[in-house]
Amino acid sequence: MSHPQFDKHRAQLEGALNAIHTRGYWSAFNEMPSPKTYGETAPVDGKLAFESHLGQQFALYQPGQTGWTGGEQSPYGVELAVQYPVCDIEALITAGEKAMDGWRAAGTDGRTGICLEILSRLNQQSFELAHAVMMTTGQGWMMAFQAGAPHAQDRGLEAVAYAYREQKFVPAEATWEKPQGKNPPLVMKKHFELVGRGVGVVVGCGTFPTWNTYPGLFAALATGNAVIVKPHSNAILPAAITVRTIRAVLAENGIDPNLVSLCVTDQRATTQKLVTHKAVKSVDFTGGNVFGQWLIENCRQAQVYAELAGVNNIVIDSTDSYKKMLGNLAFTLSLYSGQMCTTSQAILVPAGGIETDEGHKSYDEVCTDLARAVTGFLSKPEVAHAVLGAIQSAETLKRIEEAGSGKLGTVILAPSKLDNPDFPKAEVRTPVLLACDAGDEAKYMEERFGPISFIVKVADTAAAIALSERIISTHGALTAGVYSTRAEVIDAMTAATWRSKVALSINLTGGVFVNQSAAYSDYHGTGGNPSANASYADSAFVANRFRVVQRRYHV
Amino acid sequence: MSHPQFDKHRAQLEGALNAIHTRGYWSAFNEMPSPKTYGETAPVDGKLAFESHLGQQFALYQPGQTGWTGGEQSPYGVELAVQYPVCDIEALITAGEKAMDGWRAAGTDGRTGICLEILSRLNQQSFELAHAVMMTTGQGWMMAFQAGAPHAQDRGLEAVAYAYREQKFVPAEATWEKPQGKNPPLVMKKHFELVGRGVGVVVGCGTFPTWNTYPGLFAALATGNAVIVKPHSNAILPAAITVRTIRAVLAENGIDPNLVSLCVTDQRATTQKLVTHKAVKSVDFTGGNVFGQWLIENCRQAQVYAELAGVNNIVIDSTDSYKKMLGNLAFTLSLYSGQMCTTSQAILVPAGGIETDEGHKSYDEVCTDLARAVTGFLSKPEVAHAVLGAIQSAETLKRIEEAGSGKLGTVILAPSKLDNPDFPKAEVRTPVLLACDAGDEAKYMEERFGPISFIVKVADTAAAIALSERIISTHGALTAGVYSTRAEVIDAMTAATWRSKVALSINLTGGVFVNQSAAYSDYHGTGGNPSANASYADSAFVANRFRVVQRRYHV
Repeated sequence: MSHPQFDKHRAQLEGALNAIHTRGYWSAFNEMPSPKTYGETAPVDGKLAFESHLGQQFALYQPGQTGWTGGEQSPYGVELAVQYPVCDIEALITAGEKAMDGWRAAGTDGRTGICLEILSRLNQQSFELAHAVMMTTGQGWMMAFQAGAPHAQDRGLEAVAYAYREQKFVPAEATWEKPQGKNPPLVMKKHFELVGRGVGVVVGCGTFPTWNTYPGLFAALATGNAVIVKPHSNAILPAAITVRTIRAVLAENGIDPNLVSLCVTDQRATTQKLVTHKAVKSVDFTGGNVFGQWLIENCRQAQVYAELAGVNNIVIDSTDSYKKMLGNLAFTLSLYSGQMCTTSQAILVPAGGIETDEGHKSYDEVCTDLARAVTGFLSKPEVAHAVLGAIQSAETLKRIEEAGSGKLGTVILAPSKLDNPDFPKAEVRTPVLLACDAGDEAKYMEERFGPISFIVKVADTAAAIALSERIISTHGALTAGVYSTRAEVIDAMTAATWRSKVALSINLTGGVFVNQSAAYSDYHGTGGNPSANASYADSAFVANRFRVVQRRYHV
Repeated sequence: MSHPQFDKHRAQLEGALNAIHTRGYWSAFNEMPSPKTYGETAPVDGKLAFESHLGQQFALYQPGQTGWTGGEQSPYGVELAVQYPVCDIEALITAGEKAMDGWRAAGTDGRTGICLEILSRLNQQSFELAHAVMMTTGQGWMMAFQAGAPHAQDRGLEAVAYAYREQKFVPAEATWEKPQGKNPPLVMKKHFELVGRGVGVVVGCGTFPTWNTYPGLFAALATGNAVIVKPHSNAILPAAITVRTIRAVLAENGIDPNLVSLCVTDQRATTQKLVTHKAVKSVDFTGGNVFGQWLIENCRQAQVYAELAGVNNIVIDSTDSYKKMLGNLAFTLSLYSGQMCTTSQAILVPAGGIETDEGHKSYDEVCTDLARAVTGFLSKPEVAHAVLGAIQSAETLKRIEEAGSGKLGTVILAPSKLDNPDFPKAEVRTPVLLACDAGDEAKYMEERFGPISFIVKVADTAAAIALSERIISTHGALTAGVYSTRAEVIDAMTAATWRSKVALSINLTGGVFVNQSAAYSDYHGTGGNPSANASYADSAFVANRFRVVQRRYHV
């Protein structure tokens, strides 16, 4: 029971299946905005496509539409003024459930093939999506292109590959023949039908509206479920473009497009009603701890896959590459103004300082040198703007101001406001670096989202490792790092991360950064500490999204 | 990184892996109590081993022991008087967590090999376990042997096979090499460590203390977790024998035996404290809806895998084998006095009767004929006692009495008390059959555990299928059945079961019964309706019990 779309994309699927098993480097979608890959006119076409949405109603022809809403504010200060359909959630749910029957009947190959076609079509829209991501989130252009388009598509494909592997393991049918000694055997024919659990809701975040949405969206879709995408109220456009393309590809392939819909609302109560609806069987969420915990507490009818916040940290014990270490950290702290769930917030440094290839460095020297590294890295405006982007929310601006005031620790590096010549209204800030003692837990031991980091003075390396473990076990973290030239320190840190269940980056000094995770190779989150109860992507992320319904009879 | 126990049992594992993928007939453990398989002296040795526990303290040498408790009442009326250690739950949890490190270090092959050795050793104890199951649950001897020993061991092995497949898919390490155009590639070495989520608690039931315990126990154990087994207060001995053997095999293989422990308590509050403990990351439960729902509502820190109750039902439209159909149903209703979570409770029959190979049968005739079939099947005392066993609990005795009084519907077949010559104090009852109208929902639409079934008069076949779907969607069911000679009826019933997510048995007239599910081939429960939120056994049953913790560094 093959499917034309499955046949068309089979090689790509096989690449992804191999990649999730071997976990070496692999990518299905070119991360460089290359005209050779995307077409000579793609950059211009994509920009025009993005601009064509501005000031318009973004029609989706969904059931139960009652009006229009919008109001996204671009961190770059550009006028967006896109209006999106407001639909009755009961109508969306009912239509989604109805569409599931045809989606089930398409079978694993059909669903997989159509998901791959959707991803291929989204890839063709990469420039349009990149502009939409950039203008709604404040990411710099290159990051918006990479994380917003090809990397997000890779994460989606990764989820499809896991879903395919699990579904394909279940045979469509079997003959069961049980010997009965000298009597004829008992023989039964059995059939195994895969059915989605119900409607999946994917709640997006304001900073990565595609990268953090595609894994749950494609995991739920590929396993036979209807999906309602509920974007962050300030990053709707990338989700709306995605949903429109999905609906078009579904319809082209004979599937009721109401299988996937967009739910736009700025009413928290509507979202709460949606995610606790009895027909909703999975909720994927990326965002803050308060609403994430609310979901876990209240959505008892659904499996909740939550990516929340944490206190990512790095232990510095020693290094044989001091300058490169500082450079690597400076990049991490600056990228997208630290508005990543993977950005390091606490850098734990022994009170007695560290040994380096440039000799012993005291705690204060490490502070000063890291501040200088950040300042140096951002000294060229074109680099600064490309890397920093703009500040996504008023809350983050407020947190930066508060941190800069010295309330949270000694200011080592004060934030400054930069003017972006291309976007005069953009809110651009350089990172804040603070110093504090390990005992000042109230300062550094809760997530302070944005470009705010602490260099925490810890008694010694052993204490730093123990503190890192305790921070992660109690407050969560998506990333941890260690710098050391001593094997025993790396071993101790490794053992600590096995207990606190966090991904560890060791001695990063080159072109890989602790806040980056590569699809197919790096798990994003472990699901084993308070920062997330699931991981992108693994078997657990897909296996519980469908059920096997068998029937059997004598033959 | 192989392991001697893995090498020893490799062929068995490969058999199980093939079986869960092809789902034909396969078994690792002989279901017949054959001296050829189990040894000439096994029956006598097993009985003596069982008897040696009676009236004794069952020592387990667990940490934190504060005393002894017991009090199991055998449904067969025999004196058990076994005393079990009472241990402080904090001590059990702390010791379990401590033991997890060595268990993690054993790796997937080591854990898998040791689990397989445990199952092999439990298999050698099959007669001892069978007596313990029989005397605590009231099952007949043959059922106690099969379901209590080899079938339970098969379900354990099945879980181990799923766990192995998921863990083995994650490579131990990878080299990630990302091309950088004309520059040298970025190269990183990555390691992927599998770590258990924490302590797993397995809460057993009073009727199937091994069959329903082994899947969760072995799923949690094989994926790297410590396990605390909390047996039903009336079926402790089978669990205690199991835990003692596990602890012995762990110790023999250099693993801290406190990885697995037995928690005996008759205090509901202690159980509640245990399952909501922050160190407990999974809870496997089989039992009633009230406590099951309590677990789902309250154990937010853990993943709960719950097998609850339901209203299993069968739609009878027509048959070409009337006598055999009645015989098949009579066996199902009688086996272990209907004290199975898979026993049919509601048999839905059209008001206008059914077409059969013996001509048209009215609704009343179907009632009478089924009652007669049950009576006939149980007419020989030796058959009756072997099949019925004894009534496990006072609550079930009370329900039988209430049903026999006519309060719940017209009594078609009244229960009778039988005397078992081998066990004069045994509480033996024959099944109750009741007739009621589809409209009398309060009567038949909640689980009435035990040998109590309703023949429900429904307008027609279409109404019966719709009613079946509604019962299952709202109250849950582990099994459904249909009898029909018409393809369109079977198709409609099949489609209904896809929506209500229940396993369907079609036209069973031979040696397979709707209440039986075979390891490796039949999924037990779908996890998609209110009777269970998980299935024995599938990928979802294991994939979320461990986490992958990676580390990476430049090379």
